[in-house]
Amino acid sequence: MTKAYAAQSSTSPLAPHEIERRQPGPDDVKIEILYCGVCHSDLHTARNEWKNTIYPSVPGHEIVGRVVAVGDQVKNFKVGDFAGVGCMVDSCGHCSSCDEGEEQYCENGFTGTYNGPVFGGENTFGGYSQSVVVKESFVLKVRHDEKSLASVAPLLCAGITTYSPLRHWQVGPGKKVGIVGLGGLGHMGVKLAHAMGAHVVLFTTSPGKIEDGKRLGADEVCISTDPKQMAEQANSFDFILNTVAASHNLDAFLSLLKRDGTMTLVGVPAEPHPSPEVFNLIFKRRQLAGSLIGGIRETQEMLDFCAEHGIGSDIEIIPMDYINTAYERMLKSDVKYRFVIDMATL
Amino acid sequence: MTKAYAAQSSTSPLAPHEIERRQPGPDDVKIEILYCGVCHSDLHTARNEWKNTIYPSVPGHEIVGRVVAVGDQVKNFKVGDFAGVGCMVDSCGHCSSCDEGEEQYCENGFTGTYNGPVFGGENTFGGYSQSVVVKESFVLKVRHDEKSLASVAPLLCAGITTYSPLRHWQVGPGKKVGIVGLGGLGHMGVKLAHAMGAHVVLFTTSPGKIEDGKRLGADEVCISTDPKQMAEQANSFDFILNTVAASHNLDAFLSLLKRDGTMTLVGVPAEPHPSPEVFNLIFKRRQLAGSLIGGIRETQEMLDFCAEHGIGSDIEIIPMDYINTAYERMLKSDVKYRFVIDMATL
Repeated sequence: MTKAYAAQSSTSPLAPHEIERRQPGPDDVKIEILYCGVCHSDLHTARNEWKNTIYPSVPGHEIVGRVVAVGDQVKNFKVGDFAGVGCMVDSCGHCSSCDEGEEQYCENGFTGTYNGPVFGGENTFGGYSQSVVVKESFVLKVRHDEKSLASVAPLLCAGITTYSPLRHWQVGPGKKVGIVGLGGLGHMGVKLAHAMGAHVVLFTTSPGKIEDGKRLGADEVCISTDPKQMAEQANSFDFILNTVAASHNLDAFLSLLKRDGTMTLVGVPAEPHPSPEVFNLIFKRRQLAGSLIGGIRETQEMLDFCAEHGIGSDIEIIPMDYINTAYERMLKSDVKYRFVIDMATL
Repeated sequence: MTKAYAAQSSTSPLAPHEIERRQPGPDDVKIEILYCGVCHSDLHTARNEWKNTIYPSVPGHEIVGRVVAVGDQVKNFKVGDFAGVGCMVDSCGHCSSCDEGEEQYCENGFTGTYNGPVFGGENTFGGYSQSVVVKESFVLKVRHDEKSLASVAPLLCAGITTYSPLRHWQVGPGKKVGIVGLGGLGHMGVKLAHAMGAHVVLFTTSPGKIEDGKRLGADEVCISTDPKQMAEQANSFDFILNTVAASHNLDAFLSLLKRDGTMTLVGVPAEPHPSPEVFNLIFKRRQLAGSLIGGIRETQEMLDFCAEHGIGSDIEIIPMDYINTAYERMLKSDVKYRFVIDMATL
């Protein structure tokens, strides 16, 4: 049996629990989990806020650890390697999205690292546990130094969720890029867009975050509740990555895009955003888009990019039994900028 | 003085009126107007529905006529040529959009063919008149046969408004394209997308339009109020051109786009559309966009494309004094698919 932390119902706190992991098959990699990041999705799932949770539920999809066993068909991992697992552990493998390495858009639905079964089958259990067994094609190489492994964990979700749209919409030198919100996703967006060479403007409602925004790589910080500061940014952005999941006025940001600019949403609000003004799209041929995590190939590219540029998440390391308190603090945005569980404490 | 038809206030019907046209300057072309299409924008402006009408107001921006005088610097037009004028008669000429031939997105605001002054100056009067004087760079060559000139008039607004996004989002062979709505814009969208070689699906709420949709070039007609027909089209479109200006559920169409597909709106609703579901954007990296008419270079390209493919608008020719009745019929969508005024009747 494998030690884990699980929610037994939508109202019970997470608590110790035992799960069974499969024996590694020929294509499988078994990973001893060293660190697991705490994503807002973990909380949504633990509390059944998306109405699809299967209990007991073991969250966690920002996994970094050490390979402890490999199947005999495994080519790219050996015992002792550092490895990562993100939001997906399987996909259909034969649809157009899978063929193009965009497994996150699998036409038949990918299998989530937790709460994942899409074709029936058994529930999947996430990273709040001692170990995990995952097929090789969904395991990532981690090339960071051992001492930075904890800060790598959040890259597996928060990192790829921001990296993928920044790449897809071709952020780089000569581009002016906005990042809306400075939380787990937003702080990665700022770091990554900066490392890609763009001129980065952070939008936040909190004057208290100006200094931090600049430290993380923002060239400018704009207080989005200040109409004068916002007006100065009108019609000037090539791309805006909007990480705010709470319902808010999208037009305030759409109107900052240049002609042919795109704003991409990566958070799903519980209440809909106010409907965007159509003339804000029409009069500059602007686009409002969405983006979901990233494919396995691109996740590896992101990890390698981050290793090369010395990028990790800004984290607060916590013991496993702090998780329920961490959830409460996360709800108050009281974290800079991601909790990571030290699995040695399990 | 030049004969015209004008609204004197938001509540008065259009009636005979006289206006003064400038003498052609060195760069100007004077056009005797033969036909003028009737666009919904004409009605919005005549009745001050956009709260910016300057009276007296002479609508009309789908103009086709014969050149009767040219300034001595004019290079590409001579007396006797057929010529067209669309929604714009000027722009700043030095911003990034003008530099790139996208005058419709002029950063300083283009000058509309009617109700157009943006830098102060005199009001502009549109095509419900005997003649118009326009600088050469905003005059289009018309290469259609003389007998099809009336059907060319609506190309100057309805044609380019649909052609431009179809080209911008690379509609062509191998692409599946939806056209939402079969009115003045929609019927041009069907004809153009078909001529570009795409597989075209018309979406309409009217079973009575199935036959007409197919005659115009649709490969399929889908009744958008039928959930079964809509479900069959899910996740299958590369591009959807949505021509419906009335508030409606965008998600019904967004969910029909493939991964990375785009739906582009070309109508501004009086009441906002219900806010689109963010997950519909995120889970397939879909885009919701807008598009505004087209630039002068592209308008010429569109006219030449239509001449080559024998494309004009399906029209009902009316005399000038029928215009108020035509407006009432337009409000009831009682036109297949565009009224065109025969200016000989003025």
